[in-house]
Amino acid sequence: MSHSEEPAAFTAASMVEEISPGRFETAISPGWTIGGKPNGGYLLAILARAATHVSPHDHVLAASAHYLRSPDPGPASIETEVLRVGRSASQVRTRLIHDGKPCIEALTTIGTLDPHDKPYWTEGLPSPEIRDRADAIRVPGTNPAGLRVAIMDQVDLRIDPEDMGFGVGKPSGKGELNGWLELPGEDFDPISLLYALDSLPPATFDIEMSGWVPTFELTAYIRAVPTPGPVRIQQRAQLIDAHKVDEVCLVWDSTGRLVAQATQLAGIRLG
Amino acid sequence: MSHSEEPAAFTAASMVEEISPGRFETAISPGWTIGGKPNGGYLLAILARAATHVSPHDHVLAASAHYLRSPDPGPASIETEVLRVGRSASQVRTRLIHDGKPCIEALTTIGTLDPHDKPYWTEGLPSPEIRDRADAIRVPGTNPAGLRVAIMDQVDLRIDPEDMGFGVGKPSGKGELNGWLELPGEDFDPISLLYALDSLPPATFDIEMSGWVPTFELTAYIRAVPTPGPVRIQQRAQLIDAHKVDEVCLVWDSTGRLVAQATQLAGIRLG
Repeated sequence: MSHSEEPAAFTAASMVEEISPGRFETAISPGWTIGGKPNGGYLLAILARAATHVSPHDHVLAASAHYLRSPDPGPASIETEVLRVGRSASQVRTRLIHDGKPCIEALTTIGTLDPHDKPYWTEGLPSPEIRDRADAIRVPGTNPAGLRVAIMDQVDLRIDPEDMGFGVGKPSGKGELNGWLELPGEDFDPISLLYALDSLPPATFDIEMSGWVPTFELTAYIRAVPTPGPVRIQQRAQLIDAHKVDEVCLVWDSTGRLVAQATQLAGIRLG
Repeated sequence: MSHSEEPAAFTAASMVEEISPGRFETAISPGWTIGGKPNGGYLLAILARAATHVSPHDHVLAASAHYLRSPDPGPASIETEVLRVGRSASQVRTRLIHDGKPCIEALTTIGTLDPHDKPYWTEGLPSPEIRDRADAIRVPGTNPAGLRVAIMDQVDLRIDPEDMGFGVGKPSGKGELNGWLELPGEDFDPISLLYALDSLPPATFDIEMSGWVPTFELTAYIRAVPTPGPVRIQQRAQLIDAHKVDEVCLVWDSTGRLVAQATQLAGIRLG
């Protein structure tokens, strides 16, 4: 690598600097946006990085975010409050502030994942093996509607061709997207998995095309430290009711182990 | 009703009184406990009642709680902070304090559910109709291990006999419990649905018996105002890894409409 001194793209874009105890500054990158607005998982990763910094523990285990307003790219600050420090876990409240206004409020539980732990029971989840990355289609930096998706110039996100019907006006109706994600120059860790959990297009595109699907709430659980390599992602819609949709997301590492999962509630205008 | 002046049991046990702007007092009831410890969904309902009180909107839509320490029954206080008031929704941060210590930190999004809304797409969820309440078995106030479950004297919780193997040492291994819940003297509303989402025993009992399964994080979405009558509940474990389990919960009203859903991450000692 010719720039070995510089952090890789995701780490650089999600860095935080502590300017006084518990208070951080960050720079929201224009490169990690969709239609000019920063990705919600990327912003949650910034908050989790600050939370992990003020905790004696190493890995974010759970993060719950309520999205108040979407910040623009540029400088932002983060407030943290340590709620409790226990032996095996600590809890930290965080707030992203842009332009003097709170934009995201997130609660995190930080613990330490043991690399020697093995899954004990996995029967309640689908198998990641039924899809093959070989023929997957890379998502471009401009979407079919002409919207600029700058974040796709940063990452390598591929979607199973079976789920790409929405790109040609023929969604399958299942409300499920399967894909693979790689970050340039770095492997996933618990922080960047928070972005992975919000990296696919809305699974509702596989039901019916709509405009922006703004997230009200996103809860992420990190279950294990991922092994190096691309992650496999499944995003699935469950119910559209009262102009809101809930979606669940599963992320498996390159060994097929489930390493992260999320649920989100978002607004949607259909019908 | 001879006591028409008195609120029904759940409402009475979850009442809050505003003692100064945004600050409330409550009394955690010994009747809504398991082994002397208050149910986590019941406590979240208390917080959501305070959050709804300080919001111009009517119904909790999303609530995310991180459980710091388990309070004892008795007096407790609630701090609220309105984070944002929008046209269709507001966000409120809440904290339950007992004995001078923060016990639960929860974020809520409060909105207004329109009784005329209809589900738009429901294909991503299982059907509630495959189980029948007629033969369900009522959960008693003392469990097979001799633990006092006082909350079962307050509510009528019934579990499908197919899922009751754990009671005789023969769990099915599926990690799924199906049941029905009624509150004495009152119908469910968005607040009491938060309790319904945490009312079943751990679904891991259907895999392997364990001790206490303490919740780290619980996220609830309320999708519709329920029609009167008992609700049908499904609690399902997905993955046990690193001494933690995630469980998902679905709640349907008596018309079969999905009205609430939750995910939780909890600690578990097995193996």
